[in-house]
Amino acid sequence: MKVYKKAILPKGFKASGVACGIKKGRKLDLALFYSELPAKTAAKFTTNKIEAAHIKVDKRYLKHSKLFQAIAVNSGNANCFTGSKGEQVAGEFSKSVARALQLNKNKVLVASTGIIGKPLAIDKIKKSVPELVSKLSGKGVEKAKNAILTTDSFAKTVTVKFNIGNQAITLCGVAKGAGMIAPDMATMLSFIFTDANITQGALNKALGICVKQSFNCITVDGCMSTNDSVILLANGASGSKLINSGKSYDLFLEALNKVSLELAKMIVKDGEGASKFIEINVKGANNFAQAKRLGLNIANSNLFKTAMFGENPNFGRIIAAAGASGIGIKEKNIRVKLSSLKKKDISVLLDIKQGKSSATVFTSDLTPKYIKINAEYN
Amino acid sequence: MKVYKKAILPKGFKASGVACGIKKGRKLDLALFYSELPAKTAAKFTTNKIEAAHIKVDKRYLKHSKLFQAIAVNSGNANCFTGSKGEQVAGEFSKSVARALQLNKNKVLVASTGIIGKPLAIDKIKKSVPELVSKLSGKGVEKAKNAILTTDSFAKTVTVKFNIGNQAITLCGVAKGAGMIAPDMATMLSFIFTDANITQGALNKALGICVKQSFNCITVDGCMSTNDSVILLANGASGSKLINSGKSYDLFLEALNKVSLELAKMIVKDGEGASKFIEINVKGANNFAQAKRLGLNIANSNLFKTAMFGENPNFGRIIAAAGASGIGIKEKNIRVKLSSLKKKDISVLLDIKQGKSSATVFTSDLTPKYIKINAEYN
Repeated sequence: MKVYKKAILPKGFKASGVACGIKKGRKLDLALFYSELPAKTAAKFTTNKIEAAHIKVDKRYLKHSKLFQAIAVNSGNANCFTGSKGEQVAGEFSKSVARALQLNKNKVLVASTGIIGKPLAIDKIKKSVPELVSKLSGKGVEKAKNAILTTDSFAKTVTVKFNIGNQAITLCGVAKGAGMIAPDMATMLSFIFTDANITQGALNKALGICVKQSFNCITVDGCMSTNDSVILLANGASGSKLINSGKSYDLFLEALNKVSLELAKMIVKDGEGASKFIEINVKGANNFAQAKRLGLNIANSNLFKTAMFGENPNFGRIIAAAGASGIGIKEKNIRVKLSSLKKKDISVLLDIKQGKSSATVFTSDLTPKYIKINAEYN
Repeated sequence: MKVYKKAILPKGFKASGVACGIKKGRKLDLALFYSELPAKTAAKFTTNKIEAAHIKVDKRYLKHSKLFQAIAVNSGNANCFTGSKGEQVAGEFSKSVARALQLNKNKVLVASTGIIGKPLAIDKIKKSVPELVSKLSGKGVEKAKNAILTTDSFAKTVTVKFNIGNQAITLCGVAKGAGMIAPDMATMLSFIFTDANITQGALNKALGICVKQSFNCITVDGCMSTNDSVILLANGASGSKLINSGKSYDLFLEALNKVSLELAKMIVKDGEGASKFIEINVKGANNFAQAKRLGLNIANSNLFKTAMFGENPNFGRIIAAAGASGIGIKEKNIRVKLSSLKKKDISVLLDIKQGKSSATVFTSDLTPKYIKINAEYN
């Protein structure tokens, strides 16, 4: 299994990115990811009760079918808290791309990221769709990966290649983070493409497992977005035997896990104002959910995060944050270990010695730069 | 009903404060609050699973009796995460004060605030107890109110006077905040004294109601302390008729509510690095708990707090934080109103138009100074 920190699209996938004018200064703000074959699709969305319009539309489409051929994305506007008009516009976005690709309608998923509560300039998007479609190519992913960013400081891509028998399979992930971003834009989008030939059930199952351990185990500022979306397309173009269970499924799961985890870590590394990358390992919990909750409670504690920024080995704050989780930990059983805080990468170990489950969560520190970024925008 | 922003001890109460040497530079760090008569006592403690030693000791005492005559407090050390030795030392603290006051043991409640995880210098405390007791007086509260502080920037006191029939009743509250404080010291302590003649049941009930609407509705940084304690002593020295229910109970509840809310607001105003005092009113909820949860979710959002600091009227962040609460709000029903952000005092109104319940929570903004305070200590 080989890991590349760049985007290499799997067989049968193309992408493109253009500037449609939502962002100022002709910056790339419209991306398209396309599969030549209908691809089995699995997706996970934010649990925020205020959902962006694109999530409402995608969920409706996904109810009727799990076969899609494209994901169209705009950045610079989240199309969220925009009412029924916003939903209508997200539908138009999808339909205009489907038309240009000569696909049946409802075959194109959409995603948006950017400012909340402003009307999306659908006319600008529609005008640029023909150009977007005409530019589709294997190398187009270089533009697409940048067109989905808001104020991330770098594009987030990872590719994993592995074999099932003699058949080479590729998984390629592209993400935008909740990092270095202007206010209202704390949205995480992640798209993963594979030419694996896999059953719908195995695809759903694998995505569920991987998201739980990657995107759902990271936090920059504890603020849940209205637009978070992870979409996985599998078009089968590798011609490999059908993956469903057993060793081939395990390999696929391992590869997907690598892609998800790597993207998730990049999002944290690009966290707003971050100066430290912090890995928190919780051991000795009764189950994964408990371990994760303890980890996230520590990761979201402003007192812990500022201590990490200040390189202050303040274990009292770790204990207090763990105790505030509501989980019945016992003072006399707790062990805490902190790596050297002088380094950029820090690890924290919390062992509560109750059971055998563990979880790892990732976060960044809280810095004056975070406040500057988020206070001074407008 | 008259409100004074100073401490006027009710009939039969005395206090004192001395420097025992836990804090450097002979700063006041030991306080005693004393009632000449046994006082009915109600108390509320943190729900953090890691409890400071004083809470374990107080809870044990309170199981056996609700009549106490003193509260002894040290600052500069939280005596938390200090194991069975810490608990033993908290017991010694209580007993040494009881001896000096010639009270039966278990009649003195104790409280600690300061750094977590360091042994408490009980010898220094014991050596100073005779001086502490000898200095008890009505005016001693001026020293006591300062001796409970860690790095608060001001002492927090409030007194409410009202009549039941011709009988004057006084309630006096003294608190220390989670504000302007060095790492590990995010502890809130609050002591309220009254000469009201009230039944134990009415006392408990009133404290429960008031804490719910005051101390439990404030947040500075979302970090729950291991030491939070609110203790209310009622010694009956006013000679008023016994308060249990009806109009006299309503008056007492109103007075206690004023004291609690005023202290809670002062704690927020003295929040670490705070430049804004923010009142969040949530309306149209199905019940108080739901309204409060929505309010606290907004109050604890770093994105919201930095927007307030930046005077950035960013309602998208309020919506996103409300949606992340897990409460099923509906986009089309939501109304948000923000007062002018140029002022020091800001109010936010969120109406979710579902039911008839409301709640008000108080918080401060998140500023570079907060990070400076919490990162640079050590």
